[in-house]
Amino acid sequence: MTDPWQDTSLTTDARVADLVGRMTLAEKVAQLSGIWGVDPDVGDMAPMLREALAAGQQFEDLVRDGLGQLTRPFGTDPVEPAAGLASLAERQRQVVAANRFGIPAQVHEECLTGLAAWQATIFPNPLCWAATFDPALVQRMGAQIGTTMRGLGVHQGLAPVLDVVRDLRWGRVEETMGEDPYLVGAIGSAYVRGLESTGVVSTLKHFAGYSASRAARNLAPVGLGPRELADVILPPFEIALRAGARSVMNSYTDTDGVPAAADRALLTTLLRETYGFDGTVVADYFSIAFLESLHHVAEGIDEAARLALDAGIDVELPSTNAYGEPLLAAVGAGLVDEKLVDRALERVLRQKCELGLLDPGWQPVEPSPDGVDLDPAESRELALEVARRSVVLLANEGDALPLAPGTRLAVVGPRADTPEAMLGCYSFPMHVLVHHPGTEPGLEIRTVREALAETFDVTSALGCPVLGGSDADITEAVAVATDADVCVVVLGDRAGLFGNGTSGEGCDVADLTLPGRQEELLEALLATGTPVVAVLLVGRPYDLTRQVDRLAALVCGFFPGEEGATAIADVLAGRVAPSGRLPVSFPGAGSTQPSTYLSSALGQASEVSVVDPTPLFAFGHGLSWAAATWGAAAAPTGPEWATDGTCELVVPLVNEAGTDVSEVVQVYLHDRAASVVRPVQQLVAAARVDLAAGERAEVRFALHADLTSFTGRDLVRLVEPGAVELRVGASSADIRSVVELRLTGSVREVGHDRVLEPTVTVARG
Amino acid sequence: MTDPWQDTSLTTDARVADLVGRMTLAEKVAQLSGIWGVDPDVGDMAPMLREALAAGQQFEDLVRDGLGQLTRPFGTDPVEPAAGLASLAERQRQVVAANRFGIPAQVHEECLTGLAAWQATIFPNPLCWAATFDPALVQRMGAQIGTTMRGLGVHQGLAPVLDVVRDLRWGRVEETMGEDPYLVGAIGSAYVRGLESTGVVSTLKHFAGYSASRAARNLAPVGLGPRELADVILPPFEIALRAGARSVMNSYTDTDGVPAAADRALLTTLLRETYGFDGTVVADYFSIAFLESLHHVAEGIDEAARLALDAGIDVELPSTNAYGEPLLAAVGAGLVDEKLVDRALERVLRQKCELGLLDPGWQPVEPSPDGVDLDPAESRELALEVARRSVVLLANEGDALPLAPGTRLAVVGPRADTPEAMLGCYSFPMHVLVHHPGTEPGLEIRTVREALAETFDVTSALGCPVLGGSDADITEAVAVATDADVCVVVLGDRAGLFGNGTSGEGCDVADLTLPGRQEELLEALLATGTPVVAVLLVGRPYDLTRQVDRLAALVCGFFPGEEGATAIADVLAGRVAPSGRLPVSFPGAGSTQPSTYLSSALGQASEVSVVDPTPLFAFGHGLSWAAATWGAAAAPTGPEWATDGTCELVVPLVNEAGTDVSEVVQVYLHDRAASVVRPVQQLVAAARVDLAAGERAEVRFALHADLTSFTGRDLVRLVEPGAVELRVGASSADIRSVVELRLTGSVREVGHDRVLEPTVTVARG
Repeated sequence: MTDPWQDTSLTTDARVADLVGRMTLAEKVAQLSGIWGVDPDVGDMAPMLREALAAGQQFEDLVRDGLGQLTRPFGTDPVEPAAGLASLAERQRQVVAANRFGIPAQVHEECLTGLAAWQATIFPNPLCWAATFDPALVQRMGAQIGTTMRGLGVHQGLAPVLDVVRDLRWGRVEETMGEDPYLVGAIGSAYVRGLESTGVVSTLKHFAGYSASRAARNLAPVGLGPRELADVILPPFEIALRAGARSVMNSYTDTDGVPAAADRALLTTLLRETYGFDGTVVADYFSIAFLESLHHVAEGIDEAARLALDAGIDVELPSTNAYGEPLLAAVGAGLVDEKLVDRALERVLRQKCELGLLDPGWQPVEPSPDGVDLDPAESRELALEVARRSVVLLANEGDALPLAPGTRLAVVGPRADTPEAMLGCYSFPMHVLVHHPGTEPGLEIRTVREALAETFDVTSALGCPVLGGSDADITEAVAVATDADVCVVVLGDRAGLFGNGTSGEGCDVADLTLPGRQEELLEALLATGTPVVAVLLVGRPYDLTRQVDRLAALVCGFFPGEEGATAIADVLAGRVAPSGRLPVSFPGAGSTQPSTYLSSALGQASEVSVVDPTPLFAFGHGLSWAAATWGAAAAPTGPEWATDGTCELVVPLVNEAGTDVSEVVQVYLHDRAASVVRPVQQLVAAARVDLAAGERAEVRFALHADLTSFTGRDLVRLVEPGAVELRVGASSADIRSVVELRLTGSVREVGHDRVLEPTVTVARG
Repeated sequence: MTDPWQDTSLTTDARVADLVGRMTLAEKVAQLSGIWGVDPDVGDMAPMLREALAAGQQFEDLVRDGLGQLTRPFGTDPVEPAAGLASLAERQRQVVAANRFGIPAQVHEECLTGLAAWQATIFPNPLCWAATFDPALVQRMGAQIGTTMRGLGVHQGLAPVLDVVRDLRWGRVEETMGEDPYLVGAIGSAYVRGLESTGVVSTLKHFAGYSASRAARNLAPVGLGPRELADVILPPFEIALRAGARSVMNSYTDTDGVPAAADRALLTTLLRETYGFDGTVVADYFSIAFLESLHHVAEGIDEAARLALDAGIDVELPSTNAYGEPLLAAVGAGLVDEKLVDRALERVLRQKCELGLLDPGWQPVEPSPDGVDLDPAESRELALEVARRSVVLLANEGDALPLAPGTRLAVVGPRADTPEAMLGCYSFPMHVLVHHPGTEPGLEIRTVREALAETFDVTSALGCPVLGGSDADITEAVAVATDADVCVVVLGDRAGLFGNGTSGEGCDVADLTLPGRQEELLEALLATGTPVVAVLLVGRPYDLTRQVDRLAALVCGFFPGEEGATAIADVLAGRVAPSGRLPVSFPGAGSTQPSTYLSSALGQASEVSVVDPTPLFAFGHGLSWAAATWGAAAAPTGPEWATDGTCELVVPLVNEAGTDVSEVVQVYLHDRAASVVRPVQQLVAAARVDLAAGERAEVRFALHADLTSFTGRDLVRLVEPGAVELRVGASSADIRSVVELRLTGSVREVGHDRVLEPTVTVARG
């Protein structure tokens, strides 16, 4: 005999309504937060649970009213996977046994570059995903990550990061998909589709504005106006919500004085009422408490709880702080309406219901007798494929690449011979293992030196560490370079959090000079006369303007993951043609931040300021060994484009290069004049096209007029008639043809149901 | 027999209404713009008139329908004052004779650092005014400037600049009064009161947002949200409008996509309807045309005219472009309502009426037989007084200053021996004479070397120019410094426009390193072992963090005007005690822009970003030879402060130093928690107090609760109850006592009639 809430033949709403009606206030509130801990027998514990248990409390006591979330059972300490799985199963049994409804916790993990767990595949960083311009590939990666998580009983992943880069100094640039909202949306939603296809909840973050913090300092105030927010920051979230993401995490920042965690207009009016989102909103870690301690918009933790709950944060993470005793007391005192608790609870329980966590007979995932492999071959192969397709060849003066067989290489530089060079700050080794000295990554991560040594005769030297270093080390690298045919210098960042790195969360920078003595090393190597190929393994673009003209070649890999070195070596050796395109601009000489390609005329080089923000390498840039021939783009639908109609754009390509090529056809919209100031150009469509030797293709874009819409004077989104251009290019600075069109008809208001993405088809033959 | 509009016994409104009714559309439109030119017999002409007359047109033909404005008859070319006056009178007679109503033109000039005319007194730059913290002195200066202008028949001055500094990289920082809205308002309104007291129309600029452009690039997009606009950018305008300013000039920029020149919400709804402003809004030069050519919000110049007129720009400057044939045609075609023309016309004519320009028998000012002296002794003395009170002693380790009598000085550096070092980019020499090589400034401007040589045995060397320079020059300066007791190195900027300088309009910078090789020069001088006193003559703060600990002393003069060298030498020699206080922060090591003292907790040093924006020298900082003793501040009105009440704050000072001292008592508000994120502290009151040896004073501030108000969640200005602190300090980083108070009562909405400034009294005895 089951209660209605356990009856799987009823609707989710009916089941949830029944359950809510049965719960005490304490049971309700217990569903709204998490506990961060792991089994003390398996690994060290995170602070919250440790403190609780140190006070003599049993885990069962902590969860006797139930538990909303279990926080990062695999992502907190290096836990052997099978043991971690057994431990999690035991925890879940304890949770189920302790609460009178037998509801298990929802389990979440970080999964930005794959599940952030010991021994799990480390995929390339999001800048690499974006550099592939290949949503289908990223979707496969997302599905692979989800499969791994699902197999461990993890229900929710805290990815992707949809923040649009606004200032390259920001430490978290490495976690993003770059500076264009459409690209972030297209790639980010591909990840979401992949993850959600496995039943794992994808969490969109950080909603919204985080990347626009003042001077790019982590958590600093954001000065966005509502139009920039709507036209630049929000579209990736809109695209990814349509792709099925079921959770959203707030930004830590305040925009124009209102913290996102306390912003009802953002989290409820916009997200719920306008966008129609019905999933859960989870707090970025500690951000509810930060309303009191950092933003100073609450006088106490109970006030912080009230503000967050009222604004629309359903779940406090990582552990119970505001949404525990303070919230209970505030409801008891009449300061918080219990209806707000019920609202959040219903969302939490609806999600648990969808995940099967309310079903009778639910059982935790148990370790397989065959063991648990978090880095299976298919996963590693996928990591390699993403890495290979993301390497960006920035410059290749004199065709120094690919390296000729038999080239004697000096492989030097701080990132040449360390596995950590491949990893971003949300990879398990850089995020967690740095606190466990001596613990190995638990999976194979080759270095660039090792990978190149398989093909070439290689000598090597450090040159300098990422930061600091000695004259002697530079001298040694110079000697090694001098004796070689070609010097490959691998420069870049060490990813880390809050000062543990040169890139990553809290590791913002004051300027875009290469960290430490790396520029000095590079100059010393250039002075040898040996051709220098520079490889960047970086979390953000750096200023290479002083050296670029003297480099034999320049390659950017960002943080390419566990198979990154193989991918880099494949490109350098010519086994793989470079095909990545920049999702972020590289800064030009004398340029300043903030600056991205997405700016209006006065945000670009002008006669009225001596400071020229023109990038060294533009958004969308990337070279290869060979290229297709681009025909003139044409609009078969004619020069008129109804403000409610669809324009077709055809771009013919033919591969006459005698080898396989990969092109990224990029379509930028230029609006001649509008009622508000618009970017000079903005990506509205892109297609990656691989062409075999001799192959032809027609790339066809169907572009609804909604793609030209923007937020007008009255903060209503409009399609305006008038002259526009579709600029078809191989980068934002390499426009191959321009199609002039006129949007006709009346000004048209568009709502949230607008078309957000183009339709792209590639006809071959 | 006069028409009603000529009847001075009627009201202005009645006279204007009559005149508007008599005018043809062409006559109306002719009143809405200007002509930029000078008499061809006197000097070279500005582009507009030159082109017109080159086409064979007579001046009389240009003005046959009347003329709104004559643009800068003294400020365009080096015109000998008496000849210029005669020429202007003749032009005015031509204007009067040409139009059927006999209305003369309104004449405007630039007057930021005094009338920008050849041979006219050059006062210190606005950063210096603000550094004095002395509104009464600045008011006297404004009156002196107005008297000079009035004597030349000039009706309107395009000053002051009320932009609040948000990013030190901006080229126009030198034209501002710094980074605090209250200080900008207090000093700026003093200037306005002075100028307007002489009958000259003061023009507030740039309304609004200019200083917050992206990456501080001139005219770049502004990303302000409405709350930051209301709480930081607008208050100085509100204060200065109350002081009686009769004209406002738009900002060139667009804020969140809407150019100020086309922003009806700003120029009409806010400025007219909310603030009740009834003067004229004049276009910043060419900014109406820029709506088409730079902002791309208009498809043609006629559309630009319509947008600007509709938004509320009454007068096009500097010459007729949009508000001529394009506007006439647009009205004729029914695209622009003639009522909008009438609205602007009425404002223009009302101002002309107030200025006496509609009165029968109006006559232009004629040259006096005694000649015209634009730099009389009283004006020069005032320039000296402002300069003396503005010099800021930033550091004086080991009490290197004042220099002992008999000290053998090396006076070196790019700014040591050039008059232009004293001058900002809106001074006539730097603004205009740079285009007239060989023409002398026309007034005496001593150099620091010259001024010091009157007291000390001085040797000198260039060291390096502002930009560039040779190793030999640095070597020579090192030799000179080595042989001296003390080296005074004068470093800084050359002011200029659009690349003609290192500071000034369009001369934005990418970073805050001293221009050119000046840091290298400074290091070389420090290496000599001779004590180095650095004097900065700069348009913006620079990064001195790498040298400050090794300097014997550091003095900042900004651009101190024609008597600046005397003031600097007076301070160095000990004749004058330094008493200026910084209106802008000097950047700290590794700090980044944008950053000002006016920021919330997360905009300041925090655990969540490794980038630390803590300044080297904080807002309000300034040392002297001696200081008063500060007693504990107290609030005699008690610890409660009604949300509609006034708090009294008393700060006792006693001068036990045995010499005269000058203190600037600064009161900062700290709000413990508010409904939106607030700055950690914000200046709400300040008082400069000069105390003779042995003198006591009580500084009494009456602070209305309105001074604690801010823009709340719903964009309504509020006074909120709760805990606040009044922090009384000698700078924003040197708080001497804290008074804890509680605002009591209910949340109170405040309107535009709110109290904007404190009442300050100083009781001596």
